[in-house]
Amino acid sequence: MSELSHTVDKKLVLTSGRAHPELAQEIAEALGTELAPVSAYDFANGEIYVRSGESVRGKDCFVIQSHPAPLNNWLMEQLITVDSLKRASARRITVVSPFYPYARQDKKGRGREPITARLVADLYKTAGADRIMSVDLHTAQIQGFFDGPVDHLMAIPLLADYIRTRVGSDNITVVSPDTGRVRVAEQWADRLGGVPLAFVHKSRDLTVPNKAESKTVVGEIEGRTCVLIDDMIDTGGTIAGAVRVLKEAGAKDVIIAATHAVFSDPASQRLAECGAREVVVTNTLPVPPSKRFANLTVLSIAPLIARAIKEVFEDGSVTSLFDGRA
Amino acid sequence: MSELSHTVDKKLVLTSGRAHPELAQEIAEALGTELAPVSAYDFANGEIYVRSGESVRGKDCFVIQSHPAPLNNWLMEQLITVDSLKRASARRITVVSPFYPYARQDKKGRGREPITARLVADLYKTAGADRIMSVDLHTAQIQGFFDGPVDHLMAIPLLADYIRTRVGSDNITVVSPDTGRVRVAEQWADRLGGVPLAFVHKSRDLTVPNKAESKTVVGEIEGRTCVLIDDMIDTGGTIAGAVRVLKEAGAKDVIIAATHAVFSDPASQRLAECGAREVVVTNTLPVPPSKRFANLTVLSIAPLIARAIKEVFEDGSVTSLFDGRA
Amino acid sequence: MSELSHTVDKKLVLTSGRAHPELAQEIAEALGTELAPVSAYDFANGEIYVRSGESVRGKDCFVIQSHPAPLNNWLMEQLITVDSLKRASARRITVVSPFYPYARQDKKGRGREPITARLVADLYKTAGADRIMSVDLHTAQIQGFFDGPVDHLMAIPLLADYIRTRVGSDNITVVSPDTGRVRVAEQWADRLGGVPLAFVHKSRDLTVPNKAESKTVVGEIEGRTCVLIDDMIDTGGTIAGAVRVLKEAGAKDVIIAATHAVFSDPASQRLAECGAREVVVTNTLPVPPSKRFANLTVLSIAPLIARAIKEVFEDGSVTSLFDGRA
Amino acid sequence: MSELSHTVDKKLVLTSGRAHPELAQEIAEALGTELAPVSAYDFANGEIYVRSGESVRGKDCFVIQSHPAPLNNWLMEQLITVDSLKRASARRITVVSPFYPYARQDKKGRGREPITARLVADLYKTAGADRIMSVDLHTAQIQGFFDGPVDHLMAIPLLADYIRTRVGSDNITVVSPDTGRVRVAEQWADRLGGVPLAFVHKSRDLTVPNKAESKTVVGEIEGRTCVLIDDMIDTGGTIAGAVRVLKEAGAKDVIIAATHAVFSDPASQRLAECGAREVVVTNTLPVPPSKRFANLTVLSIAPLIARAIKEVFEDGSVTSLFDGRA
Amino acid sequence: MSELSHTVDKKLVLTSGRAHPELAQEIAEALGTELAPVSAYDFANGEIYVRSGESVRGKDCFVIQSHPAPLNNWLMEQLITVDSLKRASARRITVVSPFYPYARQDKKGRGREPITARLVADLYKTAGADRIMSVDLHTAQIQGFFDGPVDHLMAIPLLADYIRTRVGSDNITVVSPDTGRVRVAEQWADRLGGVPLAFVHKSRDLTVPNKAESKTVVGEIEGRTCVLIDDMIDTGGTIAGAVRVLKEAGAKDVIIAATHAVFSDPASQRLAECGAREVVVTNTLPVPPSKRFANLTVLSIAPLIARAIKEVFEDGSVTSLFDGRA
Amino acid sequence: MSELSHTVDKKLVLTSGRAHPELAQEIAEALGTELAPVSAYDFANGEIYVRSGESVRGKDCFVIQSHPAPLNNWLMEQLITVDSLKRASARRITVVSPFYPYARQDKKGRGREPITARLVADLYKTAGADRIMSVDLHTAQIQGFFDGPVDHLMAIPLLADYIRTRVGSDNITVVSPDTGRVRVAEQWADRLGGVPLAFVHKSRDLTVPNKAESKTVVGEIEGRTCVLIDDMIDTGGTIAGAVRVLKEAGAKDVIIAATHAVFSDPASQRLAECGAREVVVTNTLPVPPSKRFANLTVLSIAPLIARAIKEVFEDGSVTSLFDGRA
Repeated sequence: MSELSHTVDKKLVLTSGRAHPELAQEIAEALGTELAPVSAYDFANGEIYVRSGESVRGKDCFVIQSHPAPLNNWLMEQLITVDSLKRASARRITVVSPFYPYARQDKKGRGREPITARLVADLYKTAGADRIMSVDLHTAQIQGFFDGPVDHLMAIPLLADYIRTRVGSDNITVVSPDTGRVRVAEQWADRLGGVPLAFVHKSRDLTVPNKAESKTVVGEIEGRTCVLIDDMIDTGGTIAGAVRVLKEAGAKDVIIAATHAVFSDPASQRLAECGAREVVVTNTLPVPPSKRFANLTVLSIAPLIARAIKEVFEDGSVTSLFDGRA
Repeated sequence: MSELSHTVDKKLVLTSGRAHPELAQEIAEALGTELAPVSAYDFANGEIYVRSGESVRGKDCFVIQSHPAPLNNWLMEQLITVDSLKRASARRITVVSPFYPYARQDKKGRGREPITARLVADLYKTAGADRIMSVDLHTAQIQGFFDGPVDHLMAIPLLADYIRTRVGSDNITVVSPDTGRVRVAEQWADRLGGVPLAFVHKSRDLTVPNKAESKTVVGEIEGRTCVLIDDMIDTGGTIAGAVRVLKEAGAKDVIIAATHAVFSDPASQRLAECGAREVVVTNTLPVPPSKRFANLTVLSIAPLIARAIKEVFEDGSVTSLFDGRA
Repeated sequence: MSELSHTVDKKLVLTSGRAHPELAQEIAEALGTELAPVSAYDFANGEIYVRSGESVRGKDCFVIQSHPAPLNNWLMEQLITVDSLKRASARRITVVSPFYPYARQDKKGRGREPITARLVADLYKTAGADRIMSVDLHTAQIQGFFDGPVDHLMAIPLLADYIRTRVGSDNITVVSPDTGRVRVAEQWADRLGGVPLAFVHKSRDLTVPNKAESKTVVGEIEGRTCVLIDDMIDTGGTIAGAVRVLKEAGAKDVIIAATHAVFSDPASQRLAECGAREVVVTNTLPVPPSKRFANLTVLSIAPLIARAIKEVFEDGSVTSLFDGRA
Repeated sequence: MSELSHTVDKKLVLTSGRAHPELAQEIAEALGTELAPVSAYDFANGEIYVRSGESVRGKDCFVIQSHPAPLNNWLMEQLITVDSLKRASARRITVVSPFYPYARQDKKGRGREPITARLVADLYKTAGADRIMSVDLHTAQIQGFFDGPVDHLMAIPLLADYIRTRVGSDNITVVSPDTGRVRVAEQWADRLGGVPLAFVHKSRDLTVPNKAESKTVVGEIEGRTCVLIDDMIDTGGTIAGAVRVLKEAGAKDVIIAATHAVFSDPASQRLAECGAREVVVTNTLPVPPSKRFANLTVLSIAPLIARAIKEVFEDGSVTSLFDGRA
Repeated sequence: MSELSHTVDKKLVLTSGRAHPELAQEIAEALGTELAPVSAYDFANGEIYVRSGESVRGKDCFVIQSHPAPLNNWLMEQLITVDSLKRASARRITVVSPFYPYARQDKKGRGREPITARLVADLYKTAGADRIMSVDLHTAQIQGFFDGPVDHLMAIPLLADYIRTRVGSDNITVVSPDTGRVRVAEQWADRLGGVPLAFVHKSRDLTVPNKAESKTVVGEIEGRTCVLIDDMIDTGGTIAGAVRVLKEAGAKDVIIAATHAVFSDPASQRLAECGAREVVVTNTLPVPPSKRFANLTVLSIAPLIARAIKEVFEDGSVTSLFDGRA
Repeated sequence: MSELSHTVDKKLVLTSGRAHPELAQEIAEALGTELAPVSAYDFANGEIYVRSGESVRGKDCFVIQSHPAPLNNWLMEQLITVDSLKRASARRITVVSPFYPYARQDKKGRGREPITARLVADLYKTAGADRIMSVDLHTAQIQGFFDGPVDHLMAIPLLADYIRTRVGSDNITVVSPDTGRVRVAEQWADRLGGVPLAFVHKSRDLTVPNKAESKTVVGEIEGRTCVLIDDMIDTGGTIAGAVRVLKEAGAKDVIIAATHAVFSDPASQRLAECGAREVVVTNTLPVPPSKRFANLTVLSIAPLIARAIKEVFEDGSVTSLFDGRA
């Protein structure tokens, strides 16, 4: 038999949804390539149409989408894109969702609640995604919601390195805005050189009817510079409240650091006025000019994502980007 | 062993999404029951939260949702509801989607297109739906997209019965607005007593460059009352254009009949002004006052859905509702 | 560690079932390769045995099978072949079924009907097929029945190019033999240069008991050359009846064109005697000498399938074969 | 809320394929019920159509099919029936296949062979079967091919009870026709009261080129009545050859007992002429008059299957039918 | 047709693995029933055999297993039991694992780690479990690892009610032994009447090489009674270390409360000698006499599990057991 | 677009569980490579932790594990390893289990038994295994339990070649120790040159109450050298008993050959004392010095497994290793 054979070359395809094209563009540039041409538009009743402008047959596709409001729209756009690539014979499809949608609904806090973060993982799988890449998941357990590889990137090194350029480390306390982020605050504290920890505690005296709940700080913060951390800032209520409590409790200064700038109204106003010295976030979500304010710093997550995509594409090691953590 | 046993009673739970509560309410009334209490709201960034207010353990749940714009939102709400019911130990979950989302994207018209109607069926399955109920699917093949029972209800009898009260049958022609609906027009023609058929044809003379495409009517319509039918009216462009062509070709009168009133802008204006004597639709989608116009008639689909739900719940026959068709 | 590594070369394997070996042979020749040796035989009770005569480990396998009667036999042979390749560590398996089995049972026309076309897609998947390649599916929605890539090839260009050599285009009307093929007729009309359309309509006057149904032509065909098209010709009853109606209605001439020559008895006789000037089909199904007749033309589909296999194997673009459609 | 509730009654539906309606009829009678009305016919090209004549919604369905030649046809008919019941909302579907199709292809005897018995289990599952019921599987391991309950009925008690009425037990040897059935022969020997065992051995002296293989009996059979057993008789070559070897080795008498009468040509002639005193089989497969011969006895398996269906339907114990074995 | 029908009664089957039969016995007694007879033993090479002694066909089965060392053995026993029930036609199978195996491996803390808690959920699903019931999961996100209902019971109310009988509430601080349990400590604090919170923090000054890490208490505990809480106590090192730190920091008294008494060596000795006033646990895992010590209190979890099983079996509400939380 | 592309090289990763590191080491040496570094240890309560010490992204991984007691432990270790590799983006994962766990529980011998061998195949699949490699499966049907490729290696050639160096072939009889291995004995007999066959039969005279069962030899063995074969030797009771029976029946000499040396107590003692001239096994399972005895010969299976891994890795043919059988 005159055998037909064919050397296999892997080719990369980067596509972007319409939610945050600037981030995708930055990633493409960092990789030294271009975004694949995609037609995407909405029908009059909100149905989305997506079609790649060039062949993706046999290619290694990365579907970048950010998830600001209207989040369900961008999620469906991403699912539809994955479906179209699967049916167009893509070799492998990696969903790149820097801000994982519905990450906060990761358990049943009460009976009959959904676990939407798991549902989202299943929707990605069903549409045809082979892998997921995301940044600073609300809880690391979300990795286990997907039946396949999840590249979990961490923005803490990026943010912490920046913070270190802004404050000395001898008078810092890392503060968690509530009891659920103390473990993450500990990771920050380690990264900043073993500094002290504190957290804000919403206590309710259940034995006294109608007594309002009060917020107190647990840990030493008097006269210290507080680095108030969180994974995301949505409406900013909790974090702005925490700044107030810290100030009242004698903090010298407060810097806020968070990975995901959800910034739903009235977050920008609250943050601008809360008394923090600086607010540092990344661009996993778009931060349009209308949401920016004086003391806001937005660091780009694009170089980190670009490096991770390169490792994935070339079968290198994503773990190596984080000194053994991923 | 002193054996524990327990007689099984099946109980019905009707829940409704927030897209079209009036329809769900009408269905509940037709069934002589009430909608189950559900908490549903949006977080600031568009994430949806859903939780049933009462136990659904072991119950036969029907999740009614309509899909007007913003359609992706209502689809996600429905998927999240199904997830919450599955995790809350519902016995069986039937998705009731009178207007099936993305029904028009039911094939790859060109390479690299998605087949979103199949994706939607898979998303329902993944979330936990056991069955689907819908009305007048854009193409009947969509039934085959779901790996399980689909109750496909038909509004044609409802619409045709109404049309018969408005026109005599001896001077009617049923008209399809394009070549894709001729088979459905034939079903209408049969129902109206074996009346003649016609269709509008968009012809392009490809051999003459730059020659504009023109619309012509194929079939006898001169001096006749045309019943112009379609499964859905979105922006109304096609259907209004068809009225014009029919009038120009000598039609005496045109009545428009369609199941799904998508009515994206500027549909209402176009329909009001197109010259049709009457426009008849159902309420599978909400038709708010702002979209209503003088010669519009909206028939309620609720009694039909209620009867089908009752048959499903009581293990009766949905087929029997349609003389052997389903 | 002294690492073992190994350059990946993709190798093609073409195997053929026993239903239509000539077609497979033609495809292999068009590709400049040979069919892989396969042992296939029936046990006395009809059970089929299949085994590849050479290693398929890591190879890109295409399993060509045609589906004439006894269709269930050939379908099972193909499924068993796929199973054997899967278990023999084939890298990828593409089912090549030029005539998709059970394509006509693609929806529930009545309650309690199966959707066998979807079942067939699921059987292919279960056996181990990664992809499907087929020609002119009865309805394009069948693409959505498979959870994976479907290469949907079109014979219309092949057939239309041939037709154009036989008739001028100024006096042609494309005719659909019933209301279900009007959309396809429109594609033909476009391809033949924007020529007019017509269809045959079986009308039943339901208001008059016992009145026989009658067939009428909708559209202009008097004095014109009719190109009567369909996707398949089974027993030939509908198509031969349509020729008669067209002739009676004053057609000058009729040419029949269809992709799939099922030709169940008495199709050949009917077609030979129906009065059509020529009948043009492809060899997606075998057309043995016993079924051939004077004015029959059989075009070979092998070059088209060979080109598509080559594109799939080399990660090229199947879409490009059809100017953006697939 | 005025709650809708509904007492659950389980209802039985028995349907039969067209392969062996007499057996299904017998089973229905033994259960005191009737077969459900089913429309089933072949299209001209061999495609099968199946539709239940009455509602099966919420019912406990048993799909009885026998698998004589053309076996692939009957298997597809059964799969299509299962698909139609699944889509018609049957509550549970049990496939009743007294002779399991492709049971002999239950392993890879050589590289690149299929394991069609496993494929068949997967096809049943894919079509929608929840459970399988079968009689005397070729190897008991086939139970493990299905991911769900398999009711494995045994005909040995039925056959052995009959044999005991025909021969005394003091001079019997149970004989396996080859090395693969010795374990089953042992079960027979136990059932007949601990009688001796023997088997026929096809030996090839591989060290002597071109020496023909010869058959020898291992075990004591001289002057004894041999009960030669097998699970199925296909063309009868092996079994008739075994009778000859036994006679030559001095057996007094031979009775053949097998569950499945495949009886492919020229089985009947071979068995009639082989010198066995009697051949005893069951009707798991149809034995038409044309295949019957003088000393053939056909026992009905219907009462056993009926009892098993009743136990399954009423949540009783199938195990109890076989003294703890199943 | 003389229709066969049959009223459906649900019957409960409780089976227990061999890891902790006393707990299963207590649950059965609380339910007023008996454990189903099961044969379970080990083969010489460690393979486990399980078989139910009575029919489980159509029954609602609960498979109770505890997971002390050798944990993998008990997990496999449970999986095998589930497989045997699935194949024996159980109607529904609920895995009751009071201590969820591998709950601590619920995320990738570093690259290339497994997520064994998710794997365990998948193994349960694969074996045939429909539902999981567990107590105080290490992280609530584990609920999302299973694709189906998880009844997540909480022992905090049981433990807290007991604690309240031992200490007044005006001088209490709830203490988390590390940063990962602060959220859970908050739930305790709420339940005990809004008392203060503290946690122990392992700080590493990364800027000073070779400086040993030190433990400090964050929060007010001087002169107070500390309730030191955790979900499980394994070797007791962390918790005993925390007692020491609290004492050194001036705590008046320490009471330890944890749900799961893993008590691997040398936990008992450490706890007995660590200086805590009392150690309170439940019997989700067996606490044999050899592991008991003077100030240990073991509360029974059986009544809670029994109540939950009863609600599940009777389609009641498990949520109601916890005031809306589950 | 400046396209990123990347030539694909396949790299091999060999990892070993902790059950039998010597075998894995031998395989690595035979392949001319080294085992990948893996951290694996037990937590105090028996939970296992596994993590690869180097990147496996895109690599072809073989997970070698042997399954002596405590078998469940080693099985879980292997499953966890597979899970970790899957989540670390391994390209393909082959489970190498020379002794397939739970192979003896391959069918329901009685009602309500599990089919644990199928369960094990499903657990491998669920964890993420793409392929299985094993040696001398207890029954070949186990290949069909896995939905994917199974490389079934045979040790018979290795063992038989050795036996031939120890005995002439003219006076040999191959003996199966019970009725279930006669087919395998036949394969041995063929390999040894067409020698005679016999088996040991445990007969029970069921008609005489309380009569003890007795063992007899069926076949000619008087004065002959018996090669007593089995796939595995567990406690050695059956095989030692068979030696006794053979000796009593006049066998000149007995050599025992088996693939899997399970050697549970008191196997070594029994075998040493049973009177066999030699016992020949392979090292699919570890045979520690404490279990060795004078006339025991252990052949290494490592070269065979190494050759098979090489063929799999390089897309060669495993079938070719066995003259067309696999």
